[in-house]
Amino acid sequence: MSFIQTIKTSVQNNNSHICVGLDSDYLQLPEICKKNASLTDALFQFNKEIVDATHSSAASFKSNLVFYAVYGIEGLQALKKTNEYIKKTYPAIPVIADGKRSEMNHTARLAAKEVFNEFLFDAMTVTPWFGFDTVEAYQEYENNAVFVLCHDSNPSAGDIQDVELKNGKKLYEYLTDLVVNKWNSSGNILIEAPLTYPHILKEIYDISNDRQFFLVAGLGPQGGDIQNLAIFKERKNFVINASRSIIYASTDSDFAEKAASVSQKYQADINEVLK
Amino acid sequence: MSFIQTIKTSVQNNNSHICVGLDSDYLQLPEICKKNASLTDALFQFNKEIVDATHSSAASFKSNLVFYAVYGIEGLQALKKTNEYIKKTYPAIPVIADGKRSEMNHTARLAAKEVFNEFLFDAMTVTPWFGFDTVEAYQEYENNAVFVLCHDSNPSAGDIQDVELKNGKKLYEYLTDLVVNKWNSSGNILIEAPLTYPHILKEIYDISNDRQFFLVAGLGPQGGDIQNLAIFKERKNFVINASRSIIYASTDSDFAEKAASVSQKYQADINEVLK
Repeated sequence: MSFIQTIKTSVQNNNSHICVGLDSDYLQLPEICKKNASLTDALFQFNKEIVDATHSSAASFKSNLVFYAVYGIEGLQALKKTNEYIKKTYPAIPVIADGKRSEMNHTARLAAKEVFNEFLFDAMTVTPWFGFDTVEAYQEYENNAVFVLCHDSNPSAGDIQDVELKNGKKLYEYLTDLVVNKWNSSGNILIEAPLTYPHILKEIYDISNDRQFFLVAGLGPQGGDIQNLAIFKERKNFVINASRSIIYASTDSDFAEKAASVSQKYQADINEVLK
Repeated sequence: MSFIQTIKTSVQNNNSHICVGLDSDYLQLPEICKKNASLTDALFQFNKEIVDATHSSAASFKSNLVFYAVYGIEGLQALKKTNEYIKKTYPAIPVIADGKRSEMNHTARLAAKEVFNEFLFDAMTVTPWFGFDTVEAYQEYENNAVFVLCHDSNPSAGDIQDVELKNGKKLYEYLTDLVVNKWNSSGNILIEAPLTYPHILKEIYDISNDRQFFLVAGLGPQGGDIQNLAIFKERKNFVINASRSIIYASTDSDFAEKAASVSQKYQADINEVLK
């Protein structure tokens, strides 16, 4: 099954557009997870409880690889165990790697194997900096997908992404047109766009077509307003990531329960906006 | 000691501008390395012999992380062992991570810890896609550095990097100006540029100043001509990467000896161009 079919089915099954971000920082884990546990086990146990608590209100999970790679081999073992657990226990829920990989041709194929085969992700984020050579390799991975960071949600994203071109367009508009009308011939070269810049989110949406699916970033501490998701009313072709506001909803022993509450609240609020 | 001082000293000590790329693909290793060895040991043994054979004709080593990450934990253990060996045996030779990391603020700090602290690299490559937020974190790492991919050597690099801006400049010129005149206030935000596009290499060089140091890409199978390095005659502030043409100079048991020959030939040819 293609990645788009998988994630659309997951959105429907769980009646949710939430992507729970497992950006689990060992230093911020509740004491109850760390007590008497190795770093690998503490990270895995935390993730397992978050996943178990949120799986019915989430359409997907996403992990930024650096939160694990920062602890080297031990951290990456926790990441692999987490994805093995999700694949075994909730096989219908896709898992996205926030890896922002920027490789090309042969090395992009290696990155695909790293992320899809070794670490069991279904999709990953990539930057477009090297042009078509970055995404071409992924066209062969029919059941996987990449989300091209067309415009990000961070404060300085515009330094490069907003530069004005000779033809009057902004760089992110030019890029989105490439992604939608050239690179995505295979149906699995998708779009990441920011909730924190609503006019840009709308411009990117307007350039896209119904062969696209969006990963939206910037909910929670970054301050994106969910009312801006109303543009998706018709196509409903997106998931939206929330990490810290869900996984750190409490730092006490009730962390999983509180994570579920926040995820369910987002789920309901967003479904209301899409009515 | 700052990274620039470290690498300039290494260039002088070894009278070489060569950066040997340890992009070691397990599938392409000589049979003699793989026989009766685990994947980790085979990769490490190959790297160790290449490092021992080329350390006197090389100014630095560079590893693209995906060649190791593609084999998950086992591959990454080989990478760590390799860098531990270099740091112990040849501590004056800096090691560069070709990681093309594209993180920002807090997650850029995690990437810095991953690459500098866990995997023992001295510097790494980053894409500029997220703007200043990507490089800001590295300004604190005084003894380390990042090489911003101002323009790469691959065929489709121009899809994004060459777009023409409203002010008549190309995007890579605009970016290089940012790197040189704004982002590098700390002296460790450096430049990667391509040998395969000599006019672009020269334009980037002309925008730069003597607080910069270059990682040049595209020697070997990519077809860059070393005569184009003549622009560095005065400042001599660069290393140039060669991977496959050195490490796979032979696939027989004489692979290390042949690697040394190719590295020494490049060393001499480039020194001739710089005379």
